[in-house]
Amino acid sequence: MRTVHAYAAPSATEPLVATTIERRDVGERDVLIAIRYAGICHSDIHTVRGDWGDIAYPQVVGHEIVGEVLEVGSAVTKHSVGDRVGVGCMVNSCRECENCRAGMENYCLKGNTGTYAAVDRDGTITQGGYSTHIVVDEDFVLRVPESIPYDAAAPLLCAGITTYSPLAHWQAGPGKKVAVVGMGGLGHMAVKIAAALGAEVTVLSQTTAKEADSLAFGAARHLATKDPSVLRGLRNSFDLIINTVSAPLDLDAYLRLLRLDGTMVNVGAPPEALPLHVFTLFGNRRTFAGSSIGSITETQEMLDFCAAHDIAPAVEVISADRINEAYERVLSSDVRYRFVIDTATLVPAG
Amino acid sequence: MRTVHAYAAPSATEPLVATTIERRDVGERDVLIAIRYAGICHSDIHTVRGDWGDIAYPQVVGHEIVGEVLEVGSAVTKHSVGDRVGVGCMVNSCRECENCRAGMENYCLKGNTGTYAAVDRDGTITQGGYSTHIVVDEDFVLRVPESIPYDAAAPLLCAGITTYSPLAHWQAGPGKKVAVVGMGGLGHMAVKIAAALGAEVTVLSQTTAKEADSLAFGAARHLATKDPSVLRGLRNSFDLIINTVSAPLDLDAYLRLLRLDGTMVNVGAPPEALPLHVFTLFGNRRTFAGSSIGSITETQEMLDFCAAHDIAPAVEVISADRINEAYERVLSSDVRYRFVIDTATLVPAG
Repeated sequence: MRTVHAYAAPSATEPLVATTIERRDVGERDVLIAIRYAGICHSDIHTVRGDWGDIAYPQVVGHEIVGEVLEVGSAVTKHSVGDRVGVGCMVNSCRECENCRAGMENYCLKGNTGTYAAVDRDGTITQGGYSTHIVVDEDFVLRVPESIPYDAAAPLLCAGITTYSPLAHWQAGPGKKVAVVGMGGLGHMAVKIAAALGAEVTVLSQTTAKEADSLAFGAARHLATKDPSVLRGLRNSFDLIINTVSAPLDLDAYLRLLRLDGTMVNVGAPPEALPLHVFTLFGNRRTFAGSSIGSITETQEMLDFCAAHDIAPAVEVISADRINEAYERVLSSDVRYRFVIDTATLVPAG
Repeated sequence: MRTVHAYAAPSATEPLVATTIERRDVGERDVLIAIRYAGICHSDIHTVRGDWGDIAYPQVVGHEIVGEVLEVGSAVTKHSVGDRVGVGCMVNSCRECENCRAGMENYCLKGNTGTYAAVDRDGTITQGGYSTHIVVDEDFVLRVPESIPYDAAAPLLCAGITTYSPLAHWQAGPGKKVAVVGMGGLGHMAVKIAAALGAEVTVLSQTTAKEADSLAFGAARHLATKDPSVLRGLRNSFDLIINTVSAPLDLDAYLRLLRLDGTMVNVGAPPEALPLHVFTLFGNRRTFAGSSIGSITETQEMLDFCAAHDIAPAVEVISADRINEAYERVLSSDVRYRFVIDTATLVPAG
C-alpha cells in the first residue's frame, strides 16, 4: 500500500478537501502512474453530490487522467517506466461477457469498473484522478502520443472519447452534416473531431456567445437555439446530431432536424425520463441512440487520431485549491472548455 | 368521372354505411383498378374515428387494395389491362424532394399522398379501398405475383410492407435474434417475414393465447409478457425488436432487451408522448427508431419475396355488411389476423 495525496469530497454537501488515500501495491499486471493532470468532468460533480445515487465518502473523483509510468508489475508488457499514459472512465471490466469478448468493455454486461465510486475487483471503492498517483491494470492504460501536451491530453480520456466514439461509429465524415448540441467540454471536442473527420459541423447552442470559438474549432456555423424559429428552419437537415446536453431537452424538436436515416445520439445524460413522440421517429426513419464513452481500442484510436490531426481540448489549468470554485463555474457553464487540475498542487507546500 | 360503390364513414361516431363515390377519369398516367379485396387496417379505424385528427366526411378508408387492371391511360407503360395489381398506403408523392429522388417516396418531405383522407394533387380528398374501383397513378401501383391469392395479397400492401421494410433495413437474417412485440395484423406478418429471412424469432405477446400460431408462423418461441419476470429474463438478448403495438408501452423495459448495437423499431404508432430514460440507450449503445410503410420499390420487393417464400397473411374474408362488426373485433384484438373485405359484396343485390 502507498499513501498518496488527493482531493476528496467528504460528503454530498461539503466542499472537496485535501486529504490522503491509499493505493494498492503494484500487482503483476498493474501500472503505477504518477498523475500530472486530471480533468474536471461534469460527471465528477454529479457523482460527489449524489445526483446519480448514493455513494460512500470520502470519495476522490476524476476520470481524465494523464501522467507517467513510475513502476510496472512483473507481467506487464504494454507499458514501460517513463511512458506517457492516460486513464479514462474505466479501470476494469468482467472480460468474459459477449461485449467484453467483442472488445467493447465500455458496454460490459456486468458493468465496467468505473475509475471512481465503483466497487473494484478486490472489493474496495475505486478512487479517481484528483490524486498524485494511481495503480491501474495495464489493459486499461492508454498511450498518450508525444505531440499532445499532458494538460491538454487529460480531457481526451473522457470528453474526447465520449464524442469520438459516436462520431466514428455513425460515420461522421465528408458529405455528412453533423449538428453538435451544446458547446461545453464535450461539445467543443465533438466540433473539433467532427470537423477533422471531414463533416460539415453546425453548433446548436443557446446563445451566440461562443460563436467565434465554434468557428475557430472548425464548425461551419453556430446557431442560437433560444429563438424557436431556428430549429424549425433546420428540419430534415442533419445526418447526425450529437447531443451533449445533460439537461432535459425537447427531444421531438431536435429529432425533427434529422434527414432520411439520420441519428441523434445522446452523450449527455439527463437522469429524468424525457417524453418522446414515436411519430417523430416515423418521419425520415429517424433513430435515437445513446453512446457511452468508448472501448479501450477506440480510445487509443482517438488519441492517435487527435495527435495526427493536431487536435487538443481547450483547457484552463488550475491548482487544487481552486477545484471547488471550478465546480461552481462548470455548473454555470463558465468554462472554456475544460478545467484541468495540475496535480503537483495536491502536494502540500513545505 | 365514374360513380362506384363504396362503404364510407358518415362521421367520427356513426357506423360505416354503403354509398357511392366518384372516381376521376383515367388520366394518361393512370390505371383504373377493379378492386377484388381490401384489408381492414387498424389505421382505418383510427382515421375514421378522428383519433389522428379531424377529417372530412363522408370518408372511404382502406389501403390494402388488390384487384385487376380494367383500363390504362395512354402513357402508362408499367401495367396492362388484366394485370393483377395492388395499391398500398400512398398514391402519390412530390417526386422532387431529396427523399423522393432517392426512391424513398414513403418519406416524401412534403408528405406522400395517402390513399385515403389526404389532399390529392387535384385538391380532392383521396378515398380508399372499401370500394369497387380506384384510379391510381401507375407509379404507385404494384404487381401482385400470380402465386399469392387475391384475398391474402391485400394485407401485404400495408401490414406486409410495414414489417418487411424495417426487417430488411435492419438486416434481420441468419444469426440475428429478432423479437416481435404484439401478435396482430402487423405482428403475424413480422413473424412470417423475419423467419423467412432466416432470423431466430421470439414473439412477445401479453398472453400465451396465440402461442401455437406463433410457432406455426415460424417463431422459435412465444413468451407472455404479463409476467414482468419474462422481460427481465430477456435483457441484452435481441439484435432487433419490431414493436407493432400502438398502445403506450414501457419503452425502457423493452429497450433493455437489446444487446450491443441492437435496435428497437416502432411500427405501432401511439399518439401520446412516451417517457424514455436516455440512460437505457447508453447500455449496449441501443437505438430506438421508427419506420413508416416502405417505398414502392421495397413494396414490390416484398411482394416478390413473399411469393418466393410462399408467405401470405392469415385472413378472414368478410362481406361489406360485416365491416362495422369487424372494427369492434379489431379493437378487441379478436381477429386472426386480418379482416379482408370481398368487394363484390359492396354492390347492392338485384
